[in-house]
Amino acid sequence: MAEASVKPTPVLKDELDIVIPTIRSLDFLEMWRPFFQPYHLIIVQDGDPSKTIKVPDGFDYELYNRNDINRILGPKASCISFKDSACRCFGYMVSKKKYIFTIDDDCFVAKNPSGKEINALEQHIKNLLSPSTPLFFNTLYDPYRDGADFVRGYPFSLREGVHTAVSHGLWLNIPDYDAPTQLVKPLERNSRYVDAVLTIPKGTLFPMCGMNLAFDRELIGPAMYFGLMGDGQPIGRYDDMWAGWCVKVICDHLGYGVKTGLPYIWHSKASNPFVNLKKEYNGIFWQEEAIPFFQSVMLPKECTTVQQCYIELSKQVKEKLGKVDPYFNKLAEAMVTWIEAWDELNSAEGSTGKLPAKGAAM
Amino acid sequence: MAEASVKPTPVLKDELDIVIPTIRSLDFLEMWRPFFQPYHLIIVQDGDPSKTIKVPDGFDYELYNRNDINRILGPKASCISFKDSACRCFGYMVSKKKYIFTIDDDCFVAKNPSGKEINALEQHIKNLLSPSTPLFFNTLYDPYRDGADFVRGYPFSLREGVHTAVSHGLWLNIPDYDAPTQLVKPLERNSRYVDAVLTIPKGTLFPMCGMNLAFDRELIGPAMYFGLMGDGQPIGRYDDMWAGWCVKVICDHLGYGVKTGLPYIWHSKASNPFVNLKKEYNGIFWQEEAIPFFQSVMLPKECTTVQQCYIELSKQVKEKLGKVDPYFNKLAEAMVTWIEAWDELNSAEGSTGKLPAKGAAM
Repeated sequence: MAEASVKPTPVLKDELDIVIPTIRSLDFLEMWRPFFQPYHLIIVQDGDPSKTIKVPDGFDYELYNRNDINRILGPKASCISFKDSACRCFGYMVSKKKYIFTIDDDCFVAKNPSGKEINALEQHIKNLLSPSTPLFFNTLYDPYRDGADFVRGYPFSLREGVHTAVSHGLWLNIPDYDAPTQLVKPLERNSRYVDAVLTIPKGTLFPMCGMNLAFDRELIGPAMYFGLMGDGQPIGRYDDMWAGWCVKVICDHLGYGVKTGLPYIWHSKASNPFVNLKKEYNGIFWQEEAIPFFQSVMLPKECTTVQQCYIELSKQVKEKLGKVDPYFNKLAEAMVTWIEAWDELNSAEGSTGKLPAKGAAM
Repeated sequence: MAEASVKPTPVLKDELDIVIPTIRSLDFLEMWRPFFQPYHLIIVQDGDPSKTIKVPDGFDYELYNRNDINRILGPKASCISFKDSACRCFGYMVSKKKYIFTIDDDCFVAKNPSGKEINALEQHIKNLLSPSTPLFFNTLYDPYRDGADFVRGYPFSLREGVHTAVSHGLWLNIPDYDAPTQLVKPLERNSRYVDAVLTIPKGTLFPMCGMNLAFDRELIGPAMYFGLMGDGQPIGRYDDMWAGWCVKVICDHLGYGVKTGLPYIWHSKASNPFVNLKKEYNGIFWQEEAIPFFQSVMLPKECTTVQQCYIELSKQVKEKLGKVDPYFNKLAEAMVTWIEAWDELNSAEGSTGKLPAKGAAM
């Protein structure tokens, strides 16, 4: 009884922000209360800024709508998408914490096979605080988990691993399928709980989903740009994919690790496949060019910071993907604007000034 | 009741051999009887050829001891290890089937989390008969399993996958650790059942364990050489690792896939870590040179068969690893001998002649 009254401080309580993009009231937070309440939330309101987003009592948050984004970034606000959850990356930019966890508002607490509610945030933190092993595959998955280790034949020189920059979580119930797959398999649900965390090897790209994602903002933040999507753009639902390709290429270059697997969240609602198809169809074509581009991209040795890598990447995007569609020229320019805005807000001078926005507990 | 009496023909019954290296009576087969009895076994008896290996009644098998190997291969028998489970690769060579499953005699039937006995062979066959996806990572693991698919952002052009050449299974209970890890963690047991099969991405090496392994002999057989280990050699317990490095590099070159994950077997007995350390210590040094070598090895376009790739690899081994230790010169020569012996036994002429050896049901 005595023990229960002394609650331990949640891990990284003062070093992690939870970023949530939304267009509706955040009732979904009720289910997450035991896990999220100790942390600070950054809510990025998409769509009509005059609408009021209801946040359940007791949460510590700041909220930004489109007017706030325009006010804070001025002309550079053009790099932040509107009417698309890609707007969430504004939250990464205004955060001052070392770690970010971002989650969609249709994601709920999942249960593990023994029926226990999964603290997704805690697992992401475990993933981020333990090393990654991108240089050689470990067949028993994450060697740093309890009860696991490096197997016979794993080089000893690689057992310290590298810093983990990204933790990519998965989804029970509604899987993250594209529109064509949704249309073909409308009833498919993911019920397979795979009890694994693994490092995506160096040189291998993956489809990064933004629904349940955590990262080390200091290591990789400036590359977590979710691109130009939604309103006025010829594409949607590729925001997280774009970020994933860029992030993976830069992590590989700088020697950081990307993990995927646990934790699971419960994804409640399949989005409309017809609407999705309209958003996706250009991306479905373009990814056939973009992925080979990212698979073969080379960053020069001189690029030693994420910002340098990202600016270099923007040049190559313009040069190589600009031919695929003029959209990529616009995107390449937005990538530069994003870095300028990031640096403005995250330099010693930039960190004071136009912030903060309205918040409950500021 | 009527249904139960009509047993379905086991999958690939006439296209798969089970290869077992052993020095003792094969009582472990009793537990595998429901799963293995329909298949043909190739038993490779290691050590003293005058010893009699007892095989439980009812199994269809052929058995080769050292005298048989010497008789069949003549001077080329020098490429087959003695007093080391590396001798199992002789079984791959004399098989005439398309698929091989190899298992150690201290491996038993494991149970899945719902308590059901796992038919490891059936899962290996599923893995081999469905494609692999080495060119892009799928975050929901094997997209060809029931209830899974490719996730959003997976290029459609890559969804046919490639032929699977290797299925690498895992182990519950005693994990496959090296001697130093065994010494440090004598009591560690693997109790984590990870319900996943995944493709090891192109360009990534892995530590391939020979304890519970299946492969497509027609696609990759000649590269499944387990090297020179044991009696008269300065190294042991690197037979499967060596094969794994060679196989992966050649699969990557020829466009075949390698899967790891399910099925699990129950590994019953930890080998003696002191004995293992003696066998391994050279390998522990040498792998620090050998793995970077295999990570950077380039096979020329002209190599379009496994044999050509393997001979080319043997040249590069001699050139690059010969400097590390003279052992690698000997190994490079044995690699050539292995291919010569393979071709002799597997050409139209070679397939008749000195075979078969003694067997129960030949």
